Amino acid sequence: MLIDGIQATQVSATDRGLNYGDGLFETMRVHRGRVCLLERHLARLRESCRRIALPYPGDDVLAGDVSRLQPGADTEGVLRLVLTRGDSGRGYAPPPGAAVRRIVALYPLPRLPDELTVGICATRLGRSPALGGLKHLGRLEQVLAAAEAAAAGWHEGLMLDECDRVVEGTRHNLFFVRHGQWYTPPLDACGVAGVMRGMVREALAMLGLGGGEAALRYDELHEVEELLLCNAVVGVRRVSELDGRRLGGGRVVADLAAPLAAAGAAWLA
Amino acid sequence: MLIDGIQATQVSATDRGLNYGDGLFETMRVHRGRVCLLERHLARLRESCRRIALPYPGDDVLAGDVSRLQPGADTEGVLRLVLTRGDSGRGYAPPPGAAVRRIVALYPLPRLPDELTVGICATRLGRSPALGGLKHLGRLEQVLAAAEAAAAGWHEGLMLDECDRVVEGTRHNLFFVRHGQWYTPPLDACGVAGVMRGMVREALAMLGLGGGEAALRYDELHEVEELLLCNAVVGVRRVSELDGRRLGGGRVVADLAAPLAAAGAAWLA
Repeated sequence: MLIDGIQATQVSATDRGLNYGDGLFETMRVHRGRVCLLERHLARLRESCRRIALPYPGDDVLAGDVSRLQPGADTEGVLRLVLTRGDSGRGYAPPPGAAVRRIVALYPLPRLPDELTVGICATRLGRSPALGGLKHLGRLEQVLAAAEAAAAGWHEGLMLDECDRVVEGTRHNLFFVRHGQWYTPPLDACGVAGVMRGMVREALAMLGLGGGEAALRYDELHEVEELLLCNAVVGVRRVSELDGRRLGGGRVVADLAAPLAAAGAAWLA
Repeated sequence: MLIDGIQATQVSATDRGLNYGDGLFETMRVHRGRVCLLERHLARLRESCRRIALPYPGDDVLAGDVSRLQPGADTEGVLRLVLTRGDSGRGYAPPPGAAVRRIVALYPLPRLPDELTVGICATRLGRSPALGGLKHLGRLEQVLAAAEAAAAGWHEGLMLDECDRVVEGTRHNLFFVRHGQWYTPPLDACGVAGVMRGMVREALAMLGLGGGEAALRYDELHEVEELLLCNAVVGVRRVSELDGRRLGGGRVVADLAAPLAAAGAAWLA
């Protein structure tokens, strides 16, 4: 683990990420020792920094951190990059000239089967237009929902917003079929606009299979015949069972592999 | 600062409070070297722990931490108590048997005048029934709103929810007058149900001045003649100016002092 570019395992207890969730993170796939989709992740991070007025450290500094971790040439894993607004005294207002803190750490690749069983979590996603789409550090809703999924034995849990719209999984974005076209829920008020979600949208459009945004109400979910989940660690996964109901399809996962690999998801090649 | 009862300034960078906002905090007033309202704060914390399935360390352990900090006999300050779900690898789901981490730190008393100028923040509070009322570690909305208030030169900024209801300030709960009675907005879907808010409600009821919950729409705010803000650090403050409009009243602040002091807000005596 590197903290501000230096090998370390501890951070100051006055860190604003710890005390106020005042920061952002990216979760990246490491394949054969290389970080995949780094440019897309950094572009997303830069834009997210702009939204919360967190000074972006710069592509070179962050790419330098990543390369300094030096995963072995055969490493399959996950690289997590956290930015916080550094240290401050007590108080929500960001101190002038706060120094951004960078934490980069390597984790093992999680195991996940090709076909996922999914249920609906009772924990809802809050609707917060200020934070919608951001991968910020305040993830207590996902923690509670993931605990539900683990207790129920699902591979993943879907989360609804307060308006009974299906938004995403606890750690995956969601795609669904309607009238033969694929859609993903809009994320203007909640959810994380994942890097892989953007790539899947592009790939679906290229294949003539859709890729647009559309809301999905909870009561429509049970008519859906096919569901995909995606993130930048695993790529795309088919949902085989939703709330105990078997779902069909899955050919699209194979169809997506080539365009996603060509766009940088090297582990899908 | 004490971390798990031991003098320290650093925490593990794998702390779940840092990585996922997976934790809670209490902010307490220190007056003449003593922590005020400790029992109420711990009762609130215990109930909040129950809501997010965070093991509560016990009153004795937490009171022990607080007494071990030993503020000097004349100290006026703020004591912040943070609980996190300890360390874990990557992943939202709480690891079985996670050890709760305790961080207790003393901060200087903030300066705040008796009469506050207040504006309306553009940053909205997300509506999240799972987290409504909790003082959890994910406070990025408050960070963004506090930055707005600081930039505008207000003492405090009021925050609306997505439904145009006025909920609270960035660091104070809100009371308003309607037909001669005082009310405070309900916090079932957002906001922090502060210890002082509960005490002010009880004191208002005792004085025959109300203290119930009622929603306050943004378009009703501009008809309100009197506003109070409160928290466990300062007690109660009158709003003298709202969005540039002078507000009247304020006698209730003096009326509340005696019952609040009797209920444990010793610095108001």
